[in-house]
Amino acid sequence: MAAERLVVIGGDAAGMSAASQARRFKGPDELEIVAFERGDYASYSACGIPYWVGGDVERLDDLVARTPEEHRARAIDLRMRTEAVRIDTEGRRVLARDLDAGTESWTEYDKLVIATGARPVRPSLPGIDAPGVHGVQTLGDGEAMIETLARTDGGRAVVVGAGYIGVEMAEALLKRGYEVTVLHRDEQPMATLDPDMGRLVHEAMDGLGITTVGGAAVSEILTGDDGRVRAVVTDDAEYPADVVVLGIGVRPETALAEAAGLPLGPHRGLLTDLSMRVRGHDDIWAGGDCVEVLDLVTGTTRHIALGTHANKHGQIIGANVGGDYGTFPGVVGTAVSKVCDREIARTGLREKDARAAGLQYVSATIESTGTAGYLPGAPLMTVKMLAERRSGRLLGVQIVGGVGAAKRVDIAAVALTARMTVEQMTALDLGYAPPFSPVWDPVLVAARKATAAVRKAGW
Amino acid sequence: MAAERLVVIGGDAAGMSAASQARRFKGPDELEIVAFERGDYASYSACGIPYWVGGDVERLDDLVARTPEEHRARAIDLRMRTEAVRIDTEGRRVLARDLDAGTESWTEYDKLVIATGARPVRPSLPGIDAPGVHGVQTLGDGEAMIETLARTDGGRAVVVGAGYIGVEMAEALLKRGYEVTVLHRDEQPMATLDPDMGRLVHEAMDGLGITTVGGAAVSEILTGDDGRVRAVVTDDAEYPADVVVLGIGVRPETALAEAAGLPLGPHRGLLTDLSMRVRGHDDIWAGGDCVEVLDLVTGTTRHIALGTHANKHGQIIGANVGGDYGTFPGVVGTAVSKVCDREIARTGLREKDARAAGLQYVSATIESTGTAGYLPGAPLMTVKMLAERRSGRLLGVQIVGGVGAAKRVDIAAVALTARMTVEQMTALDLGYAPPFSPVWDPVLVAARKATAAVRKAGW
Repeated sequence: MAAERLVVIGGDAAGMSAASQARRFKGPDELEIVAFERGDYASYSACGIPYWVGGDVERLDDLVARTPEEHRARAIDLRMRTEAVRIDTEGRRVLARDLDAGTESWTEYDKLVIATGARPVRPSLPGIDAPGVHGVQTLGDGEAMIETLARTDGGRAVVVGAGYIGVEMAEALLKRGYEVTVLHRDEQPMATLDPDMGRLVHEAMDGLGITTVGGAAVSEILTGDDGRVRAVVTDDAEYPADVVVLGIGVRPETALAEAAGLPLGPHRGLLTDLSMRVRGHDDIWAGGDCVEVLDLVTGTTRHIALGTHANKHGQIIGANVGGDYGTFPGVVGTAVSKVCDREIARTGLREKDARAAGLQYVSATIESTGTAGYLPGAPLMTVKMLAERRSGRLLGVQIVGGVGAAKRVDIAAVALTARMTVEQMTALDLGYAPPFSPVWDPVLVAARKATAAVRKAGW
Repeated sequence: MAAERLVVIGGDAAGMSAASQARRFKGPDELEIVAFERGDYASYSACGIPYWVGGDVERLDDLVARTPEEHRARAIDLRMRTEAVRIDTEGRRVLARDLDAGTESWTEYDKLVIATGARPVRPSLPGIDAPGVHGVQTLGDGEAMIETLARTDGGRAVVVGAGYIGVEMAEALLKRGYEVTVLHRDEQPMATLDPDMGRLVHEAMDGLGITTVGGAAVSEILTGDDGRVRAVVTDDAEYPADVVVLGIGVRPETALAEAAGLPLGPHRGLLTDLSMRVRGHDDIWAGGDCVEVLDLVTGTTRHIALGTHANKHGQIIGANVGGDYGTFPGVVGTAVSKVCDREIARTGLREKDARAAGLQYVSATIESTGTAGYLPGAPLMTVKMLAERRSGRLLGVQIVGGVGAAKRVDIAAVALTARMTVEQMTALDLGYAPPFSPVWDPVLVAARKATAAVRKAGW
């Protein structure tokens, strides 16, 4: 019997995890694996770029989890700089272009994995393509940025966007000695938090000497005589810049899938079933930043571009393609970040998410130390908790604070998954010792206050 | 109508939390509150003593959460140095002795809270009461120890016992410049972990220059001409000592309750119902270190002396006594500690606990970094996970590692409470960003390996 052929489109986390996992279950005699990657790198950590730019990570290679050669050594035919340009679901084949040779050819598949990732939002503004304006998506972006930093050492940096990438890049540029201004559209930075919690991030950035400008709509990027960026223009002002970083968000890269007639959701991500198979297509799977995932709190789909999900998707797809079995039940929307020593975390719903989902809720915010208060340097943290009215079901948690703040959100992530009420959470047996927590962990204090709020709101 | 009277025996975490919480629901017109504390301090953090001795906490007062005066200002008649010596459940009254005046008197109660705590194990060995031999239970113990340290500055210290108190005191004495030897009975220190994980603690202590001696049975304490301790003798050897710390464990302090005919469990702790009411007694509650608690994993009761539980018990008792409502569902056995920069955590069952409970299990141990591996100084941690055979239900987790290791056990504590399987855990949406976790959090890596072990063990 001839081997089946698995074709993988996209050589990063989801795609190569799927390929590697499938290979664990089936050898080359049973399963041929061909993977197309249009870029210069595969299996790398895009999330690590801010730490590379900031100087914590020394070399590009450190961010590469597995080289193309390592994949090939495991009998995965990974073709670099090869872009899939068409999927023919009827003929079960993919048209791919060798970007160097300029040639195109069809490859037939028995099973197809789409892992085309996401592309950064890049508004079509005058000057947006000028040298010195950088995205933070690929290792190539990182390389280009480091080159710009080498030539503008310690000048002025403007970061557009104040989400995870924005604040992480602000930190990186600050560490590199830049005067950093962050322009963002919302009232507060970190709009993945409620504004009252975003304000704490704002204050932390202020304290670090990072200028943040809310309500800023960028209209133009100005270039100097050398053609390089020299300033960012908003509706209100002009910000001189030696380097500009775009961190405005990403969208699922699904043009190829859409052209092939595959189903997209409201966020334009591919829709899959629980086994990560594209809905309505028995032989096509999709995972990573190009899909929408089930939000376990609201029951709707969301688009969340995050390496940890992409890796999980890849594992599950690989298991299923390889004849084993796995499902991805969904997410609760956990994310952590930091700007210097201020940690930031969220899981579940913000107030506006709860409203949009038709949920009535109560909210409780507390401040606590992360260790016993009598220990020197006990870090402070603010925890905000949302609970459904009446049922008291946990809906979401946001945390901003010092060391040990962010990963406490995991407690809430598990509680959300288990659909616990905030009152049930007050009894959780969390680790206590003076260097790690007050006798009442901050999450428990928040749960107590949220429980009181649920009761006060009544029936 | 005359006010009801609540009598509280024991003025530390459980007792005073109960009193304070009851006061929140009922004013002095409705509820008179009398509390007896035989010691010199109330509402203090015994858990903080190692950090006070070690010099992190400067003053005794820092460990006092609320002074007797503060309690009295809230209309709680807290009588210090007053020891309850008899409970007459028929007559609903308590006989208490004023330790300074030497007088005894009866106080009637409508409701009684027993929060007599635990007493440290103190084997009756020759020399055990010599000056320089110290327990770590009360602030008085801490004061006495600090006095001894002042006179033996930087000498030789012997710690008897290598549980939480033992390792924390070893750290404290090391910081104070002592040459520290820890004598313990078991094969490895930290017998609240499985021996393979305890070995990691052992190695960490070795690395810090702390000598640990396993299988050591102390037979005698030798004193010098000045009557003070000079050495600890075991069956095998003699260990010179300028200061000796006893950290051998604690037992529920229930002699008073037992004499009153109240029900004790297999660990000699008081048995309560879910509202923390002593079984069979409608008007008596008990909480803190003197009770046994339900282990949610095995369904049996355990004795766990821990401030966080005592505080929870007190809150719940106070709510119920005050006419509100609350229950304490039980524990999963979470505990965290550290010795210098090595963090230690456990929750749920060890192998021997699982065996004793009649559970068949599989075990998986992994090593991982706590942050993205490419970040400099990424801390290493070892995670061991037990899962029930067939069902795959999580049974326990143990972690030893660098910064960020210990509080990760909270993920497992919530998962245990929710009775998750290890396979369900592999899909948990835990916080990911390079400074906080690899794309697969160490707990997820352990859950994956445990899932594979469950499958391998088969049906």
